[in-house]
Amino acid sequence: MARKKKNFNDLGLGTKEDMGGYRAINKDGSFNVKKINVPFFERLNFFHSLITMSWPQFFGLILLGYFIINLVFASAYSIIGVENLTGFKTTTTLEGFIEAFFFSAQTITTLGYGRVAPISNLANTVAAVESMLGLLGFALATGLLYGRFSRPSTMIQYSATAVIAPYQDINGFMFRVVNPQNNHLLELEVQLNLAMKRENSELRDFYVLELERDKVAFMPYMWTIVHPISNSSPLFELKEGQLLEKDAEFIVSMKAFDESTSQSVYSRSSYKASEIKWGAKFEYTVTQEKNGIVIDVGKIDITEKAALND
Amino acid sequence: MARKKKNFNDLGLGTKEDMGGYRAINKDGSFNVKKINVPFFERLNFFHSLITMSWPQFFGLILLGYFIINLVFASAYSIIGVENLTGFKTTTTLEGFIEAFFFSAQTITTLGYGRVAPISNLANTVAAVESMLGLLGFALATGLLYGRFSRPSTMIQYSATAVIAPYQDINGFMFRVVNPQNNHLLELEVQLNLAMKRENSELRDFYVLELERDKVAFMPYMWTIVHPISNSSPLFELKEGQLLEKDAEFIVSMKAFDESTSQSVYSRSSYKASEIKWGAKFEYTVTQEKNGIVIDVGKIDITEKAALND
Amino acid sequence: MARKKKNFNDLGLGTKEDMGGYRAINKDGSFNVKKINVPFFERLNFFHSLITMSWPQFFGLILLGYFIINLVFASAYSIIGVENLTGFKTTTTLEGFIEAFFFSAQTITTLGYGRVAPISNLANTVAAVESMLGLLGFALATGLLYGRFSRPSTMIQYSATAVIAPYQDINGFMFRVVNPQNNHLLELEVQLNLAMKRENSELRDFYVLELERDKVAFMPYMWTIVHPISNSSPLFELKEGQLLEKDAEFIVSMKAFDESTSQSVYSRSSYKASEIKWGAKFEYTVTQEKNGIVIDVGKIDITEKAALND
Amino acid sequence: MARKKKNFNDLGLGTKEDMGGYRAINKDGSFNVKKINVPFFERLNFFHSLITMSWPQFFGLILLGYFIINLVFASAYSIIGVENLTGFKTTTTLEGFIEAFFFSAQTITTLGYGRVAPISNLANTVAAVESMLGLLGFALATGLLYGRFSRPSTMIQYSATAVIAPYQDINGFMFRVVNPQNNHLLELEVQLNLAMKRENSELRDFYVLELERDKVAFMPYMWTIVHPISNSSPLFELKEGQLLEKDAEFIVSMKAFDESTSQSVYSRSSYKASEIKWGAKFEYTVTQEKNGIVIDVGKIDITEKAALND
Repeated sequence: MARKKKNFNDLGLGTKEDMGGYRAINKDGSFNVKKINVPFFERLNFFHSLITMSWPQFFGLILLGYFIINLVFASAYSIIGVENLTGFKTTTTLEGFIEAFFFSAQTITTLGYGRVAPISNLANTVAAVESMLGLLGFALATGLLYGRFSRPSTMIQYSATAVIAPYQDINGFMFRVVNPQNNHLLELEVQLNLAMKRENSELRDFYVLELERDKVAFMPYMWTIVHPISNSSPLFELKEGQLLEKDAEFIVSMKAFDESTSQSVYSRSSYKASEIKWGAKFEYTVTQEKNGIVIDVGKIDITEKAALND
Repeated sequence: MARKKKNFNDLGLGTKEDMGGYRAINKDGSFNVKKINVPFFERLNFFHSLITMSWPQFFGLILLGYFIINLVFASAYSIIGVENLTGFKTTTTLEGFIEAFFFSAQTITTLGYGRVAPISNLANTVAAVESMLGLLGFALATGLLYGRFSRPSTMIQYSATAVIAPYQDINGFMFRVVNPQNNHLLELEVQLNLAMKRENSELRDFYVLELERDKVAFMPYMWTIVHPISNSSPLFELKEGQLLEKDAEFIVSMKAFDESTSQSVYSRSSYKASEIKWGAKFEYTVTQEKNGIVIDVGKIDITEKAALND
Repeated sequence: MARKKKNFNDLGLGTKEDMGGYRAINKDGSFNVKKINVPFFERLNFFHSLITMSWPQFFGLILLGYFIINLVFASAYSIIGVENLTGFKTTTTLEGFIEAFFFSAQTITTLGYGRVAPISNLANTVAAVESMLGLLGFALATGLLYGRFSRPSTMIQYSATAVIAPYQDINGFMFRVVNPQNNHLLELEVQLNLAMKRENSELRDFYVLELERDKVAFMPYMWTIVHPISNSSPLFELKEGQLLEKDAEFIVSMKAFDESTSQSVYSRSSYKASEIKWGAKFEYTVTQEKNGIVIDVGKIDITEKAALND
Repeated sequence: MARKKKNFNDLGLGTKEDMGGYRAINKDGSFNVKKINVPFFERLNFFHSLITMSWPQFFGLILLGYFIINLVFASAYSIIGVENLTGFKTTTTLEGFIEAFFFSAQTITTLGYGRVAPISNLANTVAAVESMLGLLGFALATGLLYGRFSRPSTMIQYSATAVIAPYQDINGFMFRVVNPQNNHLLELEVQLNLAMKRENSELRDFYVLELERDKVAFMPYMWTIVHPISNSSPLFELKEGQLLEKDAEFIVSMKAFDESTSQSVYSRSSYKASEIKWGAKFEYTVTQEKNGIVIDVGKIDITEKAALND
């Protein structure tokens, strides 16, 4: 019967589509996909773009918009004639345009010094419209700034490499994650999928890898996620060369609740066969001090040699 | 025992109510329902209306409101007498009203050039109230703009038609969906229900159709959703004419998590019997390029002939 | 083992605490509970109060705050001396105070006509602080207005009475609900609990009542919620008088996803024994028109006689 | 198979890491963890800091920022020369700087009295940039204020001590919680874990303790949470001294839905062995009045002696 289980073990990545030799999922969680011929209207998701662009781009865009809109209104005031504005001290057309530009800036920000002020009905109308547009524009900026700041930014940090390390009396595939920030992540879930080329085929197979622990209530420390290579694991008895040959990719999906923003956050990353160290284990990063535990986040990638079990 | 399962297979659509010959669910996910005699107070869900109206309507309403409120305050200043304002350059009543209108605009936007300014207590009081109202009004506009922008807009695009296509050694009912935008949809769930007229009856029956895959973790590509017409399917051995006769409607409900807004998003659509192509299959839309996969969204509706299995 | 099931059948209402003869849950979903000796700091949940107070209270509070803060700053300007402000046209102290009041209003709204302006350092400092406080205050108002508007307001409307009506070949306890607004509610869940006095005891017992349907995907129409009085029901063979004697209360809890705000919404109500009509059924409220279905919301409470099954 | 169960019984706290003698979880729900060598970029989670700092810190920071930015712009106007501003009444450099400071304040708040106004292109440019920065800055403040206010603040209050009290014919570990505020918490879940030192070892063991009730739909009253010490409990036949010796810590995790903000809220606390009263029970805090129930929140910590069962 449909919809019984709530697990999302099926990644939704095609068995055929990911065979170009590139990663299914990039290190930063994005996909190597480009969409073409998108209907024009659906491409216009301004909010998403304005929320996700970088800060320099965002402020650059605001400054540019401010400059352009003042150019437009300065032109409007010039066209209807600068004699419609009192307080002008200029004689040439260019100087008039520049003064109209600054008057526009004083109007759109609702600054309104009043040294220059509109006196005709036409100029008054333009100024009334401009000041209202200004308020709406900054209303928009307020919303965007809030939207940008309140976006949950997991920034879960993954170890640069995974390791094949001894685990109890067998071996395990391991990587580690840490939340370097001070917000609390709660109810963490992790899922590990493996994609490998099918032998003599153009297709890839996807496997769900069982984990030692796939759910924890909190993650105050660094968390080493372990897939035990038992005899039910698709990695059982595979050698390093075989993983490379099969173009193996380990796809990590994490989910958590971010207490500081009260939102669910997701994070993805992946390890290709070439990013796995065989016969290595992660170094311990915890020291105990008088008032509590110290986690050395900088050591997340440090490994040391470790003899594997047979 | 109640509340054990969390599935929503029961659509909540009546077996009798949907028999007028119209769709249970429109292509855009809305319902063909009108509510009358709604208590006055409950009809006043301003926020919902202001959030969901179109952008031209929204800005039109703001401009209209701005115009009207300035008319009101211009009247107020005219009634208490324009001699309460300094800086007026007018002689006639009409000109006075117009200048009061622009003074009102400068006040409500808190522009305040000061060329015209209130000098009596009465005029000062009106201006003090107006400027505060202005700030509240634009506070409201800020909230509404943010509310409009941050509303999740799934815009999942559905193929215009569904197909009955060969699937393994049987046939399947198939349609496809794509997220044309660049935000990531995660943890997608899809449910497919079928409504058909009961024979010799005024009632409709609803069926849950089993799907090849009803949950995927990501949807970076186009997703073809397949209901295999096995012998347990209500479509088993039904012919094209019978579907039309039974006024069949396939109701699609999708749910996902939109990573860009951190919100759950829902999408609905439907296929009537007349929107199904028999003996057709969807064309492949993926090409592999050097840096990744290219999805041709424009091809979502393209099908080609395909011989059905018996 | 704990935490396996996700149902909330246990209402968390005491078996002893609800025995004062009042309702466990009021018609509007609130509880008859007063908390005393709450630590001072924890009572100060300003945001919750400002978000949930009525609109007249909210605007009244803003106006009052605006008036008081201007009184405070007018006093400040008067104390440092009105000769620190240019443009004053007044001679008496009272007139000076009034003009300072209006100057304060022009400053806190950042209107700044400039007819009156500070000229000394002290007056400039006060004005600089006041204008910043004004901006912060209206920033706060913006947030509060948005918070008020974006609060999900289910407003699920319940029928004023429940009925005991014939249901198939037995009887059923029924009431109905409708969403009178135009937003779509999705994934609705309903839970019905019954509280009854234990015989010869000061305690109440709580029962979970099984429902014909306790989950629906949509609710575009009016929904009649039915508890079939089968022989496993605690209502089985109970008579009207017994329900009254046992001070029975039917407690309804609903949960849904509001598509317009992308939030989960909850609703509660209850029916006391005296609010149940025996041998009545709800009148049909649907008419079919050319373009769809019409729901007569005004008829939600209309019942007609119906002979009960034995 | 992975991801079947949705419980978070595994706290994610190490068996080794919590052995320094400090609490695993502090009374206020925080952890005794410090992270060092965090990459610079990831430490810069401004939003989280600005949202979670105290109100005096927050307003102090805003005032300081306002002062500094005005200093910066006053310097800018001084450097380009105060003769670029009309209306100055000053002769000395210091007086000019001060007047430039106040002009800057009038510009950044978009107050713009106009008594002082820029007349050269350079001064006009600086003022145009400043006023736009001002609007952006207050847009930011608006978002931050809203973010601060709308953050769910559970403030679930825990009894200062837990008790070992008689429960039915055995004993139980009990503590109580109350929501002192007027918002409704719905669908409450509680989890109780116990951490105890393993004998002759440097490791700690974690246990999930079964609860009498671990889920309630509402919590209008004070809720006493009970772990019955049956023979399957890890506390079975343990004595007070043993708990102290094993450095026992009872870790409470609560989760609820806050109806006033429509958000999930979490709360954590813990009881160390020394914070448990043996042979005590909580005093009753409910009184029945004419219009409903009265909860005496101030009595949450009051216990009385009670003879334990064997």
